[in-house]
Amino acid sequence: MNKDTICALATPPGGALGIIRVSGSKTFPIVSTICSVCCDSVTGNTVHYTHIVDSDGEPVDETLVSVFRAPHSYTGEDSVEISCHGSSYILNKILELLVNKGCRMANPGEFTMRAYLNGKMDLSQAEAVADLIASTNRATHHIAMSQLRGGISTKLSQLREKLLKLNTLLELELDFSDHEDLEFADRKELFSLAQTIEAHINHLAHSFETGQALKHGIPVAIVGKTNVGKSTLLNALLHDDRAIVSDIHGTTRDTIEDTIDIHGVMFRFIDTAGIRQTNDKVEQIGIQRTYQAIEHARIVLWLFDSTPTTNEEAEIISHTQGRSLIPILTKADLRPACCKSIEGFDMISISAKTGQGIPALEQAIFAAADIPNLSETDVIITNARHYDALRRAHASIRRVIDGLQVQLSGDLLAEDLRDVLAILSEITGTQITPQETLNNIFSHFCVGK
Amino acid sequence: MNKDTICALATPPGGALGIIRVSGSKTFPIVSTICSVCCDSVTGNTVHYTHIVDSDGEPVDETLVSVFRAPHSYTGEDSVEISCHGSSYILNKILELLVNKGCRMANPGEFTMRAYLNGKMDLSQAEAVADLIASTNRATHHIAMSQLRGGISTKLSQLREKLLKLNTLLELELDFSDHEDLEFADRKELFSLAQTIEAHINHLAHSFETGQALKHGIPVAIVGKTNVGKSTLLNALLHDDRAIVSDIHGTTRDTIEDTIDIHGVMFRFIDTAGIRQTNDKVEQIGIQRTYQAIEHARIVLWLFDSTPTTNEEAEIISHTQGRSLIPILTKADLRPACCKSIEGFDMISISAKTGQGIPALEQAIFAAADIPNLSETDVIITNARHYDALRRAHASIRRVIDGLQVQLSGDLLAEDLRDVLAILSEITGTQITPQETLNNIFSHFCVGK
Repeated sequence: MNKDTICALATPPGGALGIIRVSGSKTFPIVSTICSVCCDSVTGNTVHYTHIVDSDGEPVDETLVSVFRAPHSYTGEDSVEISCHGSSYILNKILELLVNKGCRMANPGEFTMRAYLNGKMDLSQAEAVADLIASTNRATHHIAMSQLRGGISTKLSQLREKLLKLNTLLELELDFSDHEDLEFADRKELFSLAQTIEAHINHLAHSFETGQALKHGIPVAIVGKTNVGKSTLLNALLHDDRAIVSDIHGTTRDTIEDTIDIHGVMFRFIDTAGIRQTNDKVEQIGIQRTYQAIEHARIVLWLFDSTPTTNEEAEIISHTQGRSLIPILTKADLRPACCKSIEGFDMISISAKTGQGIPALEQAIFAAADIPNLSETDVIITNARHYDALRRAHASIRRVIDGLQVQLSGDLLAEDLRDVLAILSEITGTQITPQETLNNIFSHFCVGK
Repeated sequence: MNKDTICALATPPGGALGIIRVSGSKTFPIVSTICSVCCDSVTGNTVHYTHIVDSDGEPVDETLVSVFRAPHSYTGEDSVEISCHGSSYILNKILELLVNKGCRMANPGEFTMRAYLNGKMDLSQAEAVADLIASTNRATHHIAMSQLRGGISTKLSQLREKLLKLNTLLELELDFSDHEDLEFADRKELFSLAQTIEAHINHLAHSFETGQALKHGIPVAIVGKTNVGKSTLLNALLHDDRAIVSDIHGTTRDTIEDTIDIHGVMFRFIDTAGIRQTNDKVEQIGIQRTYQAIEHARIVLWLFDSTPTTNEEAEIISHTQGRSLIPILTKADLRPACCKSIEGFDMISISAKTGQGIPALEQAIFAAADIPNLSETDVIITNARHYDALRRAHASIRRVIDGLQVQLSGDLLAEDLRDVLAILSEITGTQITPQETLNNIFSHFCVGK
């Protein structure tokens, strides 16, 4: 375990305030040299107004210094948070002072890595911190929060209990291996238990696909002729009160332009070139792009207006198998009533101008996404490392099941069973995790966390 | 005075952590409804680990809540700072909860405005907070810090004392106005004192030009033929260890590209098109742009190489009167020794490749800027509002001096004197400042401060 005292900026520069974090055994003596707070002698969890001064005694800033005494801190070590003005000059100057006094600049995620190493949380909870910070909507926030509160850990500990029971039964079988009739009865129970375990692991592993879709946005392709109203529809779906934060800073607009939050779930709209007709001939490139969009999508919105459906359109629609297709008649305000229908589909008639049909469309998109109920008890895997472990655990438990079927001897089965236990404990890091793996996990964090 | 309880995000979204500030009389009851900290009963200046929960009891985040009891807070009111994860979803959600529970989103600078209204700082100090947050180098930081620590307030209170003394002398004159011989003697002292005051106000007002240059960067034009090495020189000047903050975030690069920090002062390099020769004929547009750059510059770097100086170059140089001209011979590494000289100028021979001459050039640029010594006692005006007040105060004190010269009666002089006092107190806001003026001042702040 690294015993350096580390420091980092935990907020982006450029705001009214900035937070600089310091953690490690030398935190209190180091911070006490740059301000008037005698950290060593104050009570933990207290805030102190003080001036940070540089080596020449020149004032750098008027700040608040919060003191946290080990183990009652995020990292479990002696820690300080300096809340200063958000000037980049001040932030740099304070970090420079801390480094000159003996701190080291923290690596990404190093504060959370220390929290894990000091037993403040398990590894899957530590990873949830990064997901929580990155969460931008209700669904990703819910999954990260549930993981941080031990959702995965609980699920895995339930699995672990079942695995230990299986192990016990296997040992029992070994002890009584001379009673041939006994063995047969036990194997049945073993088999049933192993299948239950396999189903649980499989279920968890399968949730990764949903987890990925929720994390990166559920892909939706919008297909239709040019000028059919694609942009207008996107704008209409964006009607929601924009985030207060983005209102203030007016920044994130261009990165979220094509993702839309519907009922707390992020949908990512894939650009299609639009099926453009030039001299009644549909451009090949437009069709190619549309096929690509459909291929990557889970949901296809098919926009059309009152002009006749072309053969090319019909051909494209025939490529949407395996996707949820939602036909949409646009510009409903220009027509007295819906005048087209698509066989086998409920059609939604919308007007971006009047807002007609938009709530129904949102409901249809949300329903088509088929999101599982995000209740507290549901665990959704979003982390590729967890998914990889679950797949390997699944392979091992399959070997146990296959072994039971071919009447493999108990000691061989026990080996695969130990594998399952070891692989699953990688996820929560309850067994010793190699430093390299830890470095890899925490390198994806932001600095200051 | 507004009695709303206000809330705002005080850090930009997107970091590991975010700070949400709440201030006002209902802060404690409101915050207590969204977390488990009973703010009303805890000691001030303490930090509490708690979960923020939404109206359905769903956990929003694990946070630290710092409690500040009036008057021991930044605003002087009951205040809370919530340190949460920097996810935009979480930040929005907490602000939404606070607003639903009765907070109002704060206007820009509203926390600092309340600090001023509650007597925690005077108006010039409040304005310094915005400058401090915006400071990007040692010079602007020093000026803002000195203003925050009451630099301007002290200077103005010294002036105020002199003005009150002048007033007393004037009243004394009025009391003894029947003693004609006495009056004459007093007028001499009055005149001398008024002149001292005028000189002080003038000195302060004049510092505004320097203040502006320091705030926006001292303008430097680089003049020379194309390919003479302008970009290379800029890159060589940029050699300094880049800010730690920008290292981490890799962001600000494109905005600071043309400003360079030399000895803690920002220099702004004005782009010139370069004097391009086409068929031995200098393009008129290049010359025009160069003239414009020179016109806006305080310092002109004249870059030339070993090729002969053209008439056009010589003509351009003749337009640099009133600017500090620094002739620079580039690509020194390609020549054994300097082979050119400019009459009446020290020439600097540089090689961007070897770094030769760069420190000497930096020194020359810094010296040419003629920055006053930024010692504690020096006050530099950077605020246009202050400058405007000083100019009006100067006009009024000039009227007093003129009046003394033409033997104007004491009661007429006293009126102008009262004007000077009133105008100067506008700067610190020691007299009642109209709400409109306050709104205007604080609207330039960032939100959350």
